[in-house]
Amino acid sequence: MSHSGFVPGHAGMEELIMASQQFEPPSGTRDFLAGDLRAREHVFATIRDAFERYGFEPLQTPAFERLETLTGKYGDEGDKLIFKILRRGEHEATGEADLALRYDMTVPLARVVAAYGSQLPVPYKRYVMGPVWRADRPGRGRFREFAQCDVDVVGSASPLADAEVVCAVADALSAVGVSDFSILVNSRRALTGLLQVYRIPAAVGGGVLITLDKLDKLAPAEVARELVDTRSLDPATAEALVTDLTAPDAVDRLRKVLADAEQGREGLAEVDRLIELAAPVTGGERISFTPSLVRGLDYYTGVIFEVVAAGMPGSIASGGRYDHLIAALGGPDVPACGGSLGVERIIGLLSEEAVTAPRLDAAITAIDEESAAEAMEFAAWLRRAGLRAEIYLGSSRKLARQLKWAADRRARYAIIYGPQDRSAGLVTVRDMDSGAQQQVPPDQLVTVLSAGLAPSP
Amino acid sequence: MSHSGFVPGHAGMEELIMASQQFEPPSGTRDFLAGDLRAREHVFATIRDAFERYGFEPLQTPAFERLETLTGKYGDEGDKLIFKILRRGEHEATGEADLALRYDMTVPLARVVAAYGSQLPVPYKRYVMGPVWRADRPGRGRFREFAQCDVDVVGSASPLADAEVVCAVADALSAVGVSDFSILVNSRRALTGLLQVYRIPAAVGGGVLITLDKLDKLAPAEVARELVDTRSLDPATAEALVTDLTAPDAVDRLRKVLADAEQGREGLAEVDRLIELAAPVTGGERISFTPSLVRGLDYYTGVIFEVVAAGMPGSIASGGRYDHLIAALGGPDVPACGGSLGVERIIGLLSEEAVTAPRLDAAITAIDEESAAEAMEFAAWLRRAGLRAEIYLGSSRKLARQLKWAADRRARYAIIYGPQDRSAGLVTVRDMDSGAQQQVPPDQLVTVLSAGLAPSP
Repeated sequence: MSHSGFVPGHAGMEELIMASQQFEPPSGTRDFLAGDLRAREHVFATIRDAFERYGFEPLQTPAFERLETLTGKYGDEGDKLIFKILRRGEHEATGEADLALRYDMTVPLARVVAAYGSQLPVPYKRYVMGPVWRADRPGRGRFREFAQCDVDVVGSASPLADAEVVCAVADALSAVGVSDFSILVNSRRALTGLLQVYRIPAAVGGGVLITLDKLDKLAPAEVARELVDTRSLDPATAEALVTDLTAPDAVDRLRKVLADAEQGREGLAEVDRLIELAAPVTGGERISFTPSLVRGLDYYTGVIFEVVAAGMPGSIASGGRYDHLIAALGGPDVPACGGSLGVERIIGLLSEEAVTAPRLDAAITAIDEESAAEAMEFAAWLRRAGLRAEIYLGSSRKLARQLKWAADRRARYAIIYGPQDRSAGLVTVRDMDSGAQQQVPPDQLVTVLSAGLAPSP
Repeated sequence: MSHSGFVPGHAGMEELIMASQQFEPPSGTRDFLAGDLRAREHVFATIRDAFERYGFEPLQTPAFERLETLTGKYGDEGDKLIFKILRRGEHEATGEADLALRYDMTVPLARVVAAYGSQLPVPYKRYVMGPVWRADRPGRGRFREFAQCDVDVVGSASPLADAEVVCAVADALSAVGVSDFSILVNSRRALTGLLQVYRIPAAVGGGVLITLDKLDKLAPAEVARELVDTRSLDPATAEALVTDLTAPDAVDRLRKVLADAEQGREGLAEVDRLIELAAPVTGGERISFTPSLVRGLDYYTGVIFEVVAAGMPGSIASGGRYDHLIAALGGPDVPACGGSLGVERIIGLLSEEAVTAPRLDAAITAIDEESAAEAMEFAAWLRRAGLRAEIYLGSSRKLARQLKWAADRRARYAIIYGPQDRSAGLVTVRDMDSGAQQQVPPDQLVTVLSAGLAPSP
């Protein structure tokens, strides 16, 4: 056995570099070794715990769906990014695909609601956390395999459902340690009202909203120009719209403006109701009506929201009400609302120190053949008591070498049972932090270690 | 909002049946709704906990690998079962594949050891739990997406490593509630010694072992016939071999026989050492030398084991030492051993009752607009105290209807705050098991529920 680490033998430098590329995970994907994986799992577990307190249920669907379930659901650009799986068996030579990797969590949700409707609680409140795959060009922070984390309520039109989603998202963010965030709220109805008040024809309304959505990135003048050049608004309307939405008193202006249209009044009312209902979790100051919030996706039908965090571009969570999307995706026509946490961004935000690997409680040395058998016995006792114990598996018989291994493993205690210990009928327990050693009868080993590992009062 | 369940509107019976097939998950895959998913996650978490106590580290690799990483590693039959992913972008029309879904956990392990050698501890003890995909013909208990659960030690030739793997597997099985199992142990060296003693030519040795592996399924006479017909043994040798291996005193016979060959003696010694070292966990009676155990895969180089459970055909776990496999799979040439839990079979074994869904602590009614806002506040308090609380999201204003919902959700308590409660400044807490109701001041709600939910002393 080699203790020199794993290095391919006899390889020149060039071969080593080639080898290292050859052994990398596919472009846009990642291997998660213990440290990163524990940090991720900790975030997932914390979010899961928050959602469970709201009574959301977990769901897991297959990694792939039938190709026809996915195609046509994400627009032309989305379709190009779907990973397709070749038909197997005799059909392979045709180069045809019949399956495709999951692209998001919403289409599988629609399929599940259609398939198991009568078995599901009404409303069906589910959360889901898992990988999705997109054949995007990989880049900094952009992956081809990445986790999505969604929470949705299917089958309730109540404003309480919207509020529960917003609160669950806010609680999950707080729980994972994202503290300084704000929730921006608007309503698709309010936006429709806005278009009416400014007499913008329905035909260009969608495009106007897409342009207005850029107000958080572009200067107001640029947005106004795009409204004229691309969306064919007259300059006066474009100017008035952009000025109202970006003025320091935009909220007051828009409240006044929206009161002039029925859809505007309804939209304002649902925004205010959401803010009121979510107050016990979000507080008054953390959530606010944001008239320029659009959310690009056109399937939203009611309130929409985005969560932004101090010092971060873009949003870390978003969602809204999408009452006919489930039907459009092939499911029944039921009201629904939901939210999505940008979980990869959140994990990137959090320092890895947040999750320290569980420390090894006991590193058990094995100096000779006899002590090896005893080591297994000590390990069994300690593990039965719930402790993490490892046995030295190397080839060295030297105690110093084995104690170095114990230190490398960040063990709290080393257990030594060499010939002298055996003849005395005692086990040596070494405190790896202080270096202090004591000899104890074997049957007191678990008690001594458990006491030493107990949190100090 | 509809409370009548999700039924596609206006569909005739024929359309309904078509729809239900269309909405099923792809052939050979499964949707896991909350009940099943919780049961699975419980099994995974329990196994993870057992492995962590041994100091094994988690690993997660991508769902897909580069196609060339996988092809040629699983034999011709295996290659046919690999799900291949079409190249994206301009290359799509070619029908060529460049990626493939993970087929097992060992090839990714070899790639990880090759890629991150110097960053990994030595030995590298890792466990992995996750889905793999095989384009097998789906059948009862045979899926195209199923979980594998492996534990391996890479970089140690110590017999302690083999013992740790066997003990970790045994502890994991006990932890998930599989109690009545036996561990069968043999050694590839012992099998090589066996072939030598019976003067079986090396050229047919592998085939003879494959046939002998059927002794647990076929009658001894049938195995002897196959040895003669297919493996070209002379009838006397075939007869003697099968008789020795199936005799009531097979173990004693084989111990005597194997002592005649050096490989046989070495193999016996490593079997005995494993049984000795694993005794603190497995006990003496649970683990035994099983001379007819072969394990089909020819990459094993040392001890091999299988775990069988009372009343179940086949094995529920297996493994062994495979010292050159990592190199054969593209990694460095390091000693290694490991085990695999048949986790899908184990989940199938365990009754679902083993995991009861967490009960809802509080179902909060919302009788009118005002009580809806209060409901959000009560929910926030209860959730902050760690309780599971849900709010009624339906459209009915009737208390009876909402209490029925609370019962359907298996809530321990219902919280009622209607007009009378409000005017009294009190909240009604209904014990859903006994039907008893009490009124409490709102600020005592958390205390009262927490006390009621505390495990009785």
